[in-house]
Amino acid sequence: MTNKKEIIAGIVIIGNEILSGRTQDTNTGTISIWLNSLGIRVQEVRIIPDIEKTIVDTINEFRKKFSYVFTSGGIGPTHDDITASSISNAFGLKYGPHKEAFSILKKYYNEGEFSEGRQKMAWMPEGAKLILNPSSGAPGFFVENVFCLPGVPSILKSMLGGISNILVGGEPILSHTIHLRTVESEIAKSLSNIQENNKEVEIGSYPFFRAGKLGVAIVMRCTEQIKIDKCKSELIKFINKEKIEIVEKE
Amino acid sequence: MTNKKEIIAGIVIIGNEILSGRTQDTNTGTISIWLNSLGIRVQEVRIIPDIEKTIVDTINEFRKKFSYVFTSGGIGPTHDDITASSISNAFGLKYGPHKEAFSILKKYYNEGEFSEGRQKMAWMPEGAKLILNPSSGAPGFFVENVFCLPGVPSILKSMLGGISNILVGGEPILSHTIHLRTVESEIAKSLSNIQENNKEVEIGSYPFFRAGKLGVAIVMRCTEQIKIDKCKSELIKFINKEKIEIVEKE
Repeated sequence: MTNKKEIIAGIVIIGNEILSGRTQDTNTGTISIWLNSLGIRVQEVRIIPDIEKTIVDTINEFRKKFSYVFTSGGIGPTHDDITASSISNAFGLKYGPHKEAFSILKKYYNEGEFSEGRQKMAWMPEGAKLILNPSSGAPGFFVENVFCLPGVPSILKSMLGGISNILVGGEPILSHTIHLRTVESEIAKSLSNIQENNKEVEIGSYPFFRAGKLGVAIVMRCTEQIKIDKCKSELIKFINKEKIEIVEKE
Repeated sequence: MTNKKEIIAGIVIIGNEILSGRTQDTNTGTISIWLNSLGIRVQEVRIIPDIEKTIVDTINEFRKKFSYVFTSGGIGPTHDDITASSISNAFGLKYGPHKEAFSILKKYYNEGEFSEGRQKMAWMPEGAKLILNPSSGAPGFFVENVFCLPGVPSILKSMLGGISNILVGGEPILSHTIHLRTVESEIAKSLSNIQENNKEVEIGSYPFFRAGKLGVAIVMRCTEQIKIDKCKSELIKFINKEKIEIVEKE
């Protein structure tokens, strides 16, 4: 149920360590929640290995498909950090030292500590714009609609604020959740009718298990509060009729 | 660095709740680690919304590209559970009640409790084979090389054992990790040389921050122990020469 007024984004998580299960990705959630608040909806996420061709192909598909693309991972100093060179190839841009990034990093490190390895972090696609890094010096960058962020979750998080004002969002996506003491199969048919009556509200149903008891969270999402309210009142009417216990509202 | 002898898999996580950031995906890690132990490497993960066309297209791309495809989510009883009907469409199979699944669910519920909503969980692509569910009754299913599992992490986990003996794995992927008290930029150049000398070992470098101190985890992955050992001995030689502290070995 994609709303035409919505701005959509794609996320590309780059790294063998996520695919192997060694590292749990949390950047998807961080980026999605932040984008929601700007009225941008994440439509697809891909987790891909550190293979140049895969990165180039994915970026070239995503940058046409989505208003904004965010990558996470692969911008550090080691041999397996190939995001910046791959993005250069995707856009057909020269890959080389970025003046501003070089000067930021030079200032960040002590005299004599700005080694060849560290200098690699200043190599970017020609003409890339910087995303400042308040936690560890090395900046991210963006080219057109593709924003490249690091993989370390705390550093990525600290850099999002710096690009919020660059992005043009749509109407923020509003959400209302009701937690019920029931199971999905008891409410499936009525919920389906309510969805049918409220086509512009996306109704999600998610079972939960908390404090030894089963329940279902009903999430209603839409850009218009009035439509959520209408949907919610139909849901509440059904809940009252069936005498289902409401555990919590968000 | 894909090894020719390797069997590769793709994972498709289906659900708006993951894309919105409401729910943190952990199934990717669970499936990846289990597959690693069977000698199957996950090559790509996609997180996609509950949109039929997207599911159909992704499945049809993945089932050709990978030896095995695993989906998670969308097989419950509610209106937003559209995985089984979408898989039917992807394979051009009829979508309808599955005899064996129907009889399992009928036995699972008490007399009179096997409602229309619950019966929906027995609807599958014609000829699908079942994946038994030891925790909550409702089975998953597979068609050819596409295995459909539920989204609830504990239930998904409980079902993997039942399909381990159906999958044909390659050589298990072995891994050895050394945690160093250093930063990536200090070791980047030497690590790159070691990677150059050990092309069949995938060397990953991952910064960590633990107990107030920075470090780097070096992960070596390969199907052959002898190649990991050679790579490791070159790494240890470098570590000793540079007097870098080893924090931990796995």
